[in-house]
Amino acid sequence: MPWAGTLGSVSREGVTPQSEDFSAWYNELVIQAELVDRGPVRGTMVIRPYGYRMWELLQADLDGRIKEAGHGNACFPMFIPESYFKREAEHVEGFSPELAVVTVAGGKELEEPLVVRPTSETVIGEYMAKWIESHRDLPLLLNQWANVVRWELRPRMFLRTTEFLWQEGHTAHADEEDAMRETMWALGAYAGLARELAAIPVIEGEKTPSERFAGAERTYTIEGMMRDGRALQSGTSHYLGTNFAKVFDITYQDEDGKLVHAHTTSWGMSTRMLGGVIMTHGDDKGLVLPPRIAPYQVVIVPIGRDEAAERTAAAARDLAGELKRAGVRVHVDDRSQLRPGYKFNEWELRGVPVRLEIGPRDLDGGAVTLARRLGDQGKEQIPLDRAAELMPGILDDFQAFLYTRAERFRDEHTADVESWDAFPDQVSQGWARVFHCGRTDCEDAIKADTAATPRVIPSDAPEEHGVCFRCGEPSAYGKRILYARSY
Amino acid sequence: MPWAGTLGSVSREGVTPQSEDFSAWYNELVIQAELVDRGPVRGTMVIRPYGYRMWELLQADLDGRIKEAGHGNACFPMFIPESYFKREAEHVEGFSPELAVVTVAGGKELEEPLVVRPTSETVIGEYMAKWIESHRDLPLLLNQWANVVRWELRPRMFLRTTEFLWQEGHTAHADEEDAMRETMWALGAYAGLARELAAIPVIEGEKTPSERFAGAERTYTIEGMMRDGRALQSGTSHYLGTNFAKVFDITYQDEDGKLVHAHTTSWGMSTRMLGGVIMTHGDDKGLVLPPRIAPYQVVIVPIGRDEAAERTAAAARDLAGELKRAGVRVHVDDRSQLRPGYKFNEWELRGVPVRLEIGPRDLDGGAVTLARRLGDQGKEQIPLDRAAELMPGILDDFQAFLYTRAERFRDEHTADVESWDAFPDQVSQGWARVFHCGRTDCEDAIKADTAATPRVIPSDAPEEHGVCFRCGEPSAYGKRILYARSY
Ligand SMILES: [Zn+2]
Ligand SMILES: [Zn+2]
Repeated sequence: MPWAGTLGSVSREGVTPQSEDFSAWYNELVIQAELVDRGPVRGTMVIRPYGYRMWELLQADLDGRIKEAGHGNACFPMFIPESYFKREAEHVEGFSPELAVVTVAGGKELEEPLVVRPTSETVIGEYMAKWIESHRDLPLLLNQWANVVRWELRPRMFLRTTEFLWQEGHTAHADEEDAMRETMWALGAYAGLARELAAIPVIEGEKTPSERFAGAERTYTIEGMMRDGRALQSGTSHYLGTNFAKVFDITYQDEDGKLVHAHTTSWGMSTRMLGGVIMTHGDDKGLVLPPRIAPYQVVIVPIGRDEAAERTAAAARDLAGELKRAGVRVHVDDRSQLRPGYKFNEWELRGVPVRLEIGPRDLDGGAVTLARRLGDQGKEQIPLDRAAELMPGILDDFQAFLYTRAERFRDEHTADVESWDAFPDQVSQGWARVFHCGRTDCEDAIKADTAATPRVIPSDAPEEHGVCFRCGEPSAYGKRILYARSY
Repeated sequence: MPWAGTLGSVSREGVTPQSEDFSAWYNELVIQAELVDRGPVRGTMVIRPYGYRMWELLQADLDGRIKEAGHGNACFPMFIPESYFKREAEHVEGFSPELAVVTVAGGKELEEPLVVRPTSETVIGEYMAKWIESHRDLPLLLNQWANVVRWELRPRMFLRTTEFLWQEGHTAHADEEDAMRETMWALGAYAGLARELAAIPVIEGEKTPSERFAGAERTYTIEGMMRDGRALQSGTSHYLGTNFAKVFDITYQDEDGKLVHAHTTSWGMSTRMLGGVIMTHGDDKGLVLPPRIAPYQVVIVPIGRDEAAERTAAAARDLAGELKRAGVRVHVDDRSQLRPGYKFNEWELRGVPVRLEIGPRDLDGGAVTLARRLGDQGKEQIPLDRAAELMPGILDDFQAFLYTRAERFRDEHTADVESWDAFPDQVSQGWARVFHCGRTDCEDAIKADTAATPRVIPSDAPEEHGVCFRCGEPSAYGKRILYARSY
């Protein structure tokens, strides 16, 4: 059995209903479904096998896209000399409050403290400068899968933890055009991952200046709507211009022999995406996992006592073998000390897309009983000998169903807002499509009153002009932008 | 082109010959072949894409073995409260001199310093205690792929770096028998990985008490012979008895309802294995990579000027496409500014198993010129239209050739040593198979005189008894053991 012993018994109480207290629902669910446990140090998490497998499935897909586009994976040290870190002024200002610092090592006080990387632009910039000499060395396309540390005062599993896992792409290019092409490539890869694997219908676009990455010229994001109407940013891509190239001296000789600064980018997708999956699809009963990232796509529960139990367990194992050969991730829950109803609840809490029940009567009729986690609520019987052949299609349909459901939810909770009056209500349960003046003081006032912030200037929004819904000044950005409360 | 821009130009000087100065050869080669660069902090390394790809290939194989055997991957925090770390007395004593400690975070001095994990028995022990209740929760089979930190005073790329990458398996079992089965399973997985992927003919067996992991009851190792005759330990598996279970309170209710301590194991394989690959197969010209972990198994160099260049480059691209479809990792070196001879040297330095040259005359004859990195030294022509079909077999043969060559080298440099006289000479160039008394003071005296230490009590050595080659006392262990200088 895969992960023998890693499936403990879920508490019988279930979780606080989502509709009652979204935040309590989330916090209880991630623990009870055994995705994570609280770490020993404030704000850290232990990712348990059931949660980590989802991360691996996301990782495998994104890593394929990254490699296919010509990037090489690397591994840079996680300890960054404090002096490197301080070179880019905006960058250090943005990250300083969140740093963890090693001051003692090998039994001695260090001469120079070491920052545990919160992100790696600085250390990678140092090596780009060393490795790049000529225009022939460009583009330099690097990526790393790594853990990073940002000290969190308001931690929340997956969404904001002191240590988290991510990939960070870092690339250097001859000019702005090539660097921007890369920046948009990464954004597209994240959007594809979110839509195709996580079944999150994200909106792509640029961030307003106040929401930019510390040190970037332009920051792009993908934003998804959670089931409480808040927005979650689950991947960002930055065009850094020559900001880091100038402080780290990343230069190259162009074709005329002239020394020029490179243009760099960086982009990251983290374990935060798993928080997005939970909050986009989950319901009162627990997790609802998109098949493409579900650790188990199908769980088979054999039913019956005594010798009936032996027959159905044997049939369950045979079917599991067939499903595996058909490329389905399947688990047989043959724990004899637990009753079927308990198991059904547990696998619903854990979000398994499809449950197959095999009882003696199913077997006699050459059938198996299928129950989907959502959608077609009733159980149906399918022929046992065709189950393996049908399953990939059933899972694809379920994946598509989750996407469409989330898209409908998002669209139903998004509205054009023309005036300040209507705004607080809209952002209390969804997103507002608004004209905004683009001024920071106006953004700040809106945030102070409603906690809502500009999430994204959608790439595909039509050109439109109007007046700021808050202050009445002419609108910026040439289009409506999305405003929402966010994680 | 994959990894565009990550292939810089290797310096023309080449490296110090291996036969002249093994240590200089190694240190220069890892940098010049662009496997790694020196990190900004003492003892750290940057693993560059060419080196990291080898790690990924090892990782994918071992991860498959780990999952297949029922382990779940997880991710535990890298910051461990100092108090956890101090609980197991031998463990803390063994690791204390190597610890890096975070004392400041979020702008404040921490109340309790945080150790950056040098290994995770302590933090994982804490969670095992929490997650295990009943005999039904056992075995608990966990693994993680992680970075760890051990402050190094004599750093060497891959072999001993302050930060390194590894996997660490941590498991809990009902009894010694089951825990020992697991310990030996992990050892077998490492031996398989070393032999089948890295082409290193390792010797498996137990460590003598002086070489045990800090806190273990028994430590098992795989040891390979490097081309300077030293031994390299490239994977270890530990039976921890109930040592950690007792200090972390890892208990379970057995079938009679009695509370009992679990038996735990841990096992690790690290980026050190890559150092082993380099030192097992490399030669004066540079790296020699086993095909199964070579980033590029085949490099195609199109040859010719002007319109001949266009013809051969097109043929090279076509052939690369065919090879890719045949599952071969291939790279076309079409850099127009470099001459073929320069490219040949570069790919030899970088250890690519097979080079294919396509010149105008090859094309006219419907052929391609093949040169292996080692072995059949002459070039040979193979039919262009059969190259893709033949290549997997050619690569398998090369993989087998490397293994056999390393095994022959090891056997030629291993000898039974019966007396102290013959010992220093044997361990100056290889391994000594000896009877040893098993006393620590005797081990210490041998080490002081020759730098040689007991590497392994080989699992498959026949039962034999004799007298200690150094002190004449009766032999321990019931068999001969291997003595060598080591990395
Ligand atoms: Zn305004
Ligand atoms: Zn002795």
